[in-house]
Amino acid sequence: MADLIEELVGIVGMTGVLTGADVAARPASWLRPEPSRAKAIARPANTDEVSAVMRLCHSAGQAVIPVGGNTGLVEGATAGEDDVMLSLERMNAIESVDETGCTMTVQAGVPLHTVQERAADADLMFPVDFGARGSAQIGGAISTNAGGNAVIRYGMMREQVLGIEAVLADGTVVSSMNRLLKNNAGYDLKQLFIGTEGTLGIVTRAVLRLRPALRSRNTAFVAIDDYANVPRLLKHLGSSLGGSLTAFEVLWEDFYNTVVVERDRHAAPVDAGHPWYVLVEARGGKQEEDAQQFEAALGEALEAGLISDAAFAGGVKQRDAMWAIRDDIDGLAEILDPVMAFDVSLPIAHTADYVAAVKRRLGARWPDTFRGVSFGHLGDNNLHFLLTVGSDDHDEQREAMAIIYDELKPYRGSISAEHGIGLEKRAFLGVTRNDSEVALMRSLKQALDPKGLLNPGRVF
Amino acid sequence: MADLIEELVGIVGMTGVLTGADVAARPASWLRPEPSRAKAIARPANTDEVSAVMRLCHSAGQAVIPVGGNTGLVEGATAGEDDVMLSLERMNAIESVDETGCTMTVQAGVPLHTVQERAADADLMFPVDFGARGSAQIGGAISTNAGGNAVIRYGMMREQVLGIEAVLADGTVVSSMNRLLKNNAGYDLKQLFIGTEGTLGIVTRAVLRLRPALRSRNTAFVAIDDYANVPRLLKHLGSSLGGSLTAFEVLWEDFYNTVVVERDRHAAPVDAGHPWYVLVEARGGKQEEDAQQFEAALGEALEAGLISDAAFAGGVKQRDAMWAIRDDIDGLAEILDPVMAFDVSLPIAHTADYVAAVKRRLGARWPDTFRGVSFGHLGDNNLHFLLTVGSDDHDEQREAMAIIYDELKPYRGSISAEHGIGLEKRAFLGVTRNDSEVALMRSLKQALDPKGLLNPGRVF
Repeated sequence: MADLIEELVGIVGMTGVLTGADVAARPASWLRPEPSRAKAIARPANTDEVSAVMRLCHSAGQAVIPVGGNTGLVEGATAGEDDVMLSLERMNAIESVDETGCTMTVQAGVPLHTVQERAADADLMFPVDFGARGSAQIGGAISTNAGGNAVIRYGMMREQVLGIEAVLADGTVVSSMNRLLKNNAGYDLKQLFIGTEGTLGIVTRAVLRLRPALRSRNTAFVAIDDYANVPRLLKHLGSSLGGSLTAFEVLWEDFYNTVVVERDRHAAPVDAGHPWYVLVEARGGKQEEDAQQFEAALGEALEAGLISDAAFAGGVKQRDAMWAIRDDIDGLAEILDPVMAFDVSLPIAHTADYVAAVKRRLGARWPDTFRGVSFGHLGDNNLHFLLTVGSDDHDEQREAMAIIYDELKPYRGSISAEHGIGLEKRAFLGVTRNDSEVALMRSLKQALDPKGLLNPGRVF
Repeated sequence: MADLIEELVGIVGMTGVLTGADVAARPASWLRPEPSRAKAIARPANTDEVSAVMRLCHSAGQAVIPVGGNTGLVEGATAGEDDVMLSLERMNAIESVDETGCTMTVQAGVPLHTVQERAADADLMFPVDFGARGSAQIGGAISTNAGGNAVIRYGMMREQVLGIEAVLADGTVVSSMNRLLKNNAGYDLKQLFIGTEGTLGIVTRAVLRLRPALRSRNTAFVAIDDYANVPRLLKHLGSSLGGSLTAFEVLWEDFYNTVVVERDRHAAPVDAGHPWYVLVEARGGKQEEDAQQFEAALGEALEAGLISDAAFAGGVKQRDAMWAIRDDIDGLAEILDPVMAFDVSLPIAHTADYVAAVKRRLGARWPDTFRGVSFGHLGDNNLHFLLTVGSDDHDEQREAMAIIYDELKPYRGSISAEHGIGLEKRAFLGVTRNDSEVALMRSLKQALDPKGLLNPGRVF
């Protein structure tokens, strides 16, 4: 072990390797504040060093856990004491921006928020956005195919990545730094490294696609009394707003009642007493004209009885207040203690039935202590659940997970819409993926990392 | 050989196997009308039969060439006399449409146009569209990651496919028929079969993503005098139209002058004499309001000097007339005989320089016989070239290809934006892909088809 660390120091230098107390000073994960464990944290400064670290670990049979901004939620980057963690935090440069071609070339350790800001400086936009933007790194966002708030319009990370440079388990550098929107010259290799949670290679650099900056932003908060009108409203807005719909965030009444009514943390944009609320946002080219179309489209929805009430954000302040309700996870987490967070997806037609069934079963099992709220990016099929069963006992929590995932089966839902599998969900992978799929995943793992050293135990 | 055919008949029945004259009655490809050659064409009626055919061929060491609608342009599905062709033409059912979830489940043999029409029947839209829509099959469009006219807004086939069922070289059926927009539960296996030209598996069924139908369509034909204004116009429209830009088709003056002026096949929407023309189209939610925004955005472009002239399509007839100019490949092909067709991509900032350099070199080499026109989906980096060097001599044509691809190197361009590699371009794959990329492609091929029986010789 001492030898391996000495060899790591030989590659990345003294400041490039953390051990002992420096490892323990870092939290194990965003959800778990206890100290990290690892034999060492290697912090290479460039791709050559990443390659050399991987060659060393490969020949030593040393497991490597790649870590990004450590904001994941599924124990995808949690190391054990015998693991070497590999952090790209020193590879955090934006190498270039092509303002004409609308691309940005970055190192994997650059935080998401830095990418967003640099794009905006060029009057362009990087559309992936989520709460952890300040810490989450592009490499981690690629490896987990991160989603967030604008997927309905722009897709997930997968759709924003044009090219990738990655280091394989044996240290081979694969440079596939395509910067073209269209390139059908052979296999699209970057797909191997997007959403595979660091198990097939380590993303070291990437070419990102940027979009035109948008000039208008219109936001409303609406109430719905019949769930069947949720997908109808989505379809209506999809057509009548002509593709400018950028967010369709549904809150169940348990969410709204908790943070707006019971805890009085927000002014109520619309009256309480409705079973569903939707935060709707559209972005386009001209503020005034788009606002007219936006209000007209929601006016039609009111007339057609799709929605029962609607409040328009008259300015930035009101818009921020509406988003603050949607984003008030802290307000929920305080009363859902110990909290469990879920991220599932299923066809939008069945989401209300699914939520009701899960709540029935959890309520029957923990009649005095269960409490849960539901919400999500329903335009993307994505439902989030925050809940407590009143216990942090491991077995009880696994029992709750089993119920939540079991109820997805009739709908062929996914146990992970956007967070990934990591260690946390791998026992449940069979709910969403069949044997033929898992066997093919294993074939890929065998082809690219036959020793099983890259992020072992994750996914399957 | 007789045994193999008997065994094929045992799997798919008499009508399921074509041999001899029935094989020769089919053209080798859309570009080459000579008779097809193949030991047999197997036409399975369902996935089980595809699997059984592949098991048989796998154990017999028999190469298999999957063929879709036979509209490809790179000899991706051209068989030799010892090959078995596998056609999914009998698997042409639309199995279901989920109008709420906006998905369609199809068999691979269904033609693109049938999918588009069925989506429209449900007041939805399938956005991939190209000239061969009547014959091209979904399975082929997936296997080649087809592009077309609306990629700038909706992406290529890759972005429209949610789930895939595929049969591997050994007959294993991998069912990954996801129908959710977000599903990060393990590796995204469908990527293995999208754009890999049938070399890793045979797509048998798919779940397609449908989009909201759009209500407005606004089209204009504009003239540009300085190439630097082409990317500027693209960026301006991207922002000021708020994401509703659906087509940005650039024609060089050689194209316009040929079909509009010299051959007088079309009324001129704008005066001739400009070096570039752009067909611009936007689609949104409300015809009248969107038309105002569209005209305002182009008015701003006129004022800013980005464009020198503009004609708006006042109705369907004028719009069709504008598209007829862009689509008048027949009008070009008649005078470019024998014609060669190219499909490259490179950063939009350099496209004019690239075209000029290529024309200089081809003109110097074939001073009396070279003639070429250029155009393309420049919003996607995609340039098409139609040209003749006055000869159909194989060596001369390869020499022209070498020049065209060689000039891409300074720009790290792609030898195939959307058509694929097939047999035709594989000798040039190294222009666009480096050794590390080709090695990784070979690793994947080795993992999934170690005997090399699926579409051998394609891509690399």
